[in-house]
Amino acid sequence: MNQEWTVIDGLQYSAWSREIFEQMREGGLNAVHVTIAYHENTRETLTRLGEWNQRFESYPDLIRPVYEPADIAKAKAEGRIGIIFGAQNCSPIEDEIRLVEVMRRLGLMIMQLTYNNQSLLACGCYEDEDSGLTRFGKQVVREMNRVGMVIDMSHSAERSTLEAIDYSEQPVIISHANPSHFHPALRNKSDKVLDAVAANEGLLGFSLYPFHLKDGPQCTLEQFTEMVAWTADRMGVERIGFGSDLCQAQPQSVLEWMRVGRWSKVMDYGEGSADNAGWPDPLPWFCDNRDFPGIVAALRERGFSDDELGLIMGGNWVDLLTRAAQPCPPPDMQGAAAALGSAAEP
Amino acid sequence: MNQEWTVIDGLQYSAWSREIFEQMREGGLNAVHVTIAYHENTRETLTRLGEWNQRFESYPDLIRPVYEPADIAKAKAEGRIGIIFGAQNCSPIEDEIRLVEVMRRLGLMIMQLTYNNQSLLACGCYEDEDSGLTRFGKQVVREMNRVGMVIDMSHSAERSTLEAIDYSEQPVIISHANPSHFHPALRNKSDKVLDAVAANEGLLGFSLYPFHLKDGPQCTLEQFTEMVAWTADRMGVERIGFGSDLCQAQPQSVLEWMRVGRWSKVMDYGEGSADNAGWPDPLPWFCDNRDFPGIVAALRERGFSDDELGLIMGGNWVDLLTRAAQPCPPPDMQGAAAALGSAAEP
Repeated sequence: MNQEWTVIDGLQYSAWSREIFEQMREGGLNAVHVTIAYHENTRETLTRLGEWNQRFESYPDLIRPVYEPADIAKAKAEGRIGIIFGAQNCSPIEDEIRLVEVMRRLGLMIMQLTYNNQSLLACGCYEDEDSGLTRFGKQVVREMNRVGMVIDMSHSAERSTLEAIDYSEQPVIISHANPSHFHPALRNKSDKVLDAVAANEGLLGFSLYPFHLKDGPQCTLEQFTEMVAWTADRMGVERIGFGSDLCQAQPQSVLEWMRVGRWSKVMDYGEGSADNAGWPDPLPWFCDNRDFPGIVAALRERGFSDDELGLIMGGNWVDLLTRAAQPCPPPDMQGAAAALGSAAEP
Repeated sequence: MNQEWTVIDGLQYSAWSREIFEQMREGGLNAVHVTIAYHENTRETLTRLGEWNQRFESYPDLIRPVYEPADIAKAKAEGRIGIIFGAQNCSPIEDEIRLVEVMRRLGLMIMQLTYNNQSLLACGCYEDEDSGLTRFGKQVVREMNRVGMVIDMSHSAERSTLEAIDYSEQPVIISHANPSHFHPALRNKSDKVLDAVAANEGLLGFSLYPFHLKDGPQCTLEQFTEMVAWTADRMGVERIGFGSDLCQAQPQSVLEWMRVGRWSKVMDYGEGSADNAGWPDPLPWFCDNRDFPGIVAALRERGFSDDELGLIMGGNWVDLLTRAAQPCPPPDMQGAAAALGSAAEP
C-alpha cells in the first residue's frame, strides 16, 4: 500500500481477536467500521461497547477508538487501527429520539435506519412493500444530522433510501452493497439509488460478501474490478470505497442472529436458502484483511491511478466522515453555542 | 341494568382508585378492559402489571383479574369487577416473537398491533402511508391466534387493519372507535373496515371520547344512539359493544405520554391541536361509569330490545373473548397436546 493513503474498510463484523487486528495491520488498514449491533437493544448495545472497551484495553498496541473523524489520522500516526462504531439497525435507540444523541456521545458514528425488515424508522429491503420514512423516522434523520451520526441505508428498501437521502441535510451512505447492475441481489442497489447517493455526495462501499457478487464465491477479481470501474464512471471516483462485509471466523449462530434476531419462530434464510443455510464460501482472492493489497494491484491494472486508488481505499471515507460525522457540542454547551451564534469564540 | 346481563366496557384508562371502581359497580359494570401499555416496553409493562397486583391486593372487595374468559362470570358471581388486561401498542413484546406467549401467560388478553405510528408489526392511523402487515407482523398475528391473544386494530391504518383481518385465523376487534360515517376522525373506521370486522365475526366497541364523536363534547345522546342504530344495521347487533375510552382523572402529562411517548422532541397534538392541547371537555351525559344506565335507557328508547341491549352492553364481548381469547396450554403441555391430538383425554 502507498504509505500516503489512509486505508479504511467501511464494514466488518468478525469474531475479533489479536490475530485479526494483526492481519489488518499487515493488509495496510488504518481504520475499520465495525458493527456493534444487528438487533441489540439499548441495554445490549452498551454491553457491546463494553466488550470493545475491553478489546482496547487488551490490544492497545493494535487498536484505538474513533470518536470523531480526526481520530482516524491519530490512529494512522500511532500505527494503530482506528475502530469506527456503527449499528446495522436502529435497535440501539429503541423508541426514543433522545437516545440518538446519547449513542453518538458513546461513539456510535454510523447507524442504519433498518436491517432487512420494517423498523420504527423506515423499511428494510426484505419487506414486500416500502412506505418510506415514518413519522419517527423523519425526526431521527434530522436528529442524526444534528448530532453528526451518519445515515447508512445498506439494508433498506429503495423508497425509504430515496426518501432518507431527500430528507437528510447531510450525505447518506451505503456502507456495504454493490450495484444491482452487477448482480441483482435484494441487498444491492439500483442505478437510481446509486445516482441519488452520488448527487447527495454520499458514498458506496463495495461489498465482498459473496451473496452480493455475480457468481457468488466464484466471482473473479477481474469481474469485481470491472464493477468498480463501472461504478466509478457512474457515481464518480469520489463516491466509492470499500465496505467488505467481512465476517471472519463467525459461527453459524451469529449468521442466524443476523437473519432472525428474535422476530421469527422459524428460520429465515435471508440471502441463503434451506439448502444453502450457512456462511457462503469465501472468495479465493479475499479471505482476510491481508488480501487488500492484491485487490489494489488488480485495480491498478484496471487503470486506476495512484491518486484515484488513494480515494477509493480510504480517502473518500475520511472525507465523508469529516463532512457528516462531526460530533455536536456536549448538551450543556449547545444552548450557549446557539445563543452566541457562529461568531462565538472558543 | 338488567341483572341477567353481563356488562362490559371494552376500553378504559383512568387514574385508578377505589372511587372509580365503586362508580363502576354503581354503574352496573361486571368487567372492564383496561389499558396497561401505550409505549411501555417489556420491562415497563411488568411494572404496570405489578401496579395492578397491588390494586387487586388493595381492593379485593371490588376487583379481580381476568386471566381467561370464564373469569368474567366469576367476577359477576362474586359481585366484583373483572379486570381484562390489554395493550394499545405492541411495545410490550418489543422485537421478540416469543414474548407474545409470555405476555399472554401474564394475563395480556388483548393487544393492538399499532398505536398511531408505524410499529414493527403494522401501520398506525397517523402515518401518511400504510404498507400493511410486516414480516414480523405476520408472525405475531399467527402467534396471537395460537396463544389466545385478541388482535385489536383501534389505532391502526386501514390497509393494515384489513390485512390483519385477512391474515388472522381468529376474529379481529376494534375495541374503541366509531364509524367514519358518523364522524370522519382519523381514528374512526370506514364502512369497508366495519364490514370486514363484521364478516370476520369481530367486534366494534363504541367510543365516548369526544374527539371520536360528531360535534365533539356537544354530541348529544340522541346523536350517539342514532349512530349505534345505524351501526347495528350495518354490522349486525352481535358485532357491537362499548369501548368508552374513558380517561378519568388523568393529568395532562398522561395525554402527552399517549401522544408523544419518547419518539418526538416536539409536541404532537394527536387528535387535538396547539390551540386545543388538553383533554377534551367531557360529554354531559357521560362523565363516569355511573352514566351507563342513562345510555341504556336512551338505547331502549331508540328501539333496542332487552335481548339486544344485553348483547350490546356486554354479551357480545363475552362471546368474542370466549371465541378468541382462550389461553393455550402451558408450554410444557403443548407438545403433549399436539402429540395426542384432539382426541386426547385430560
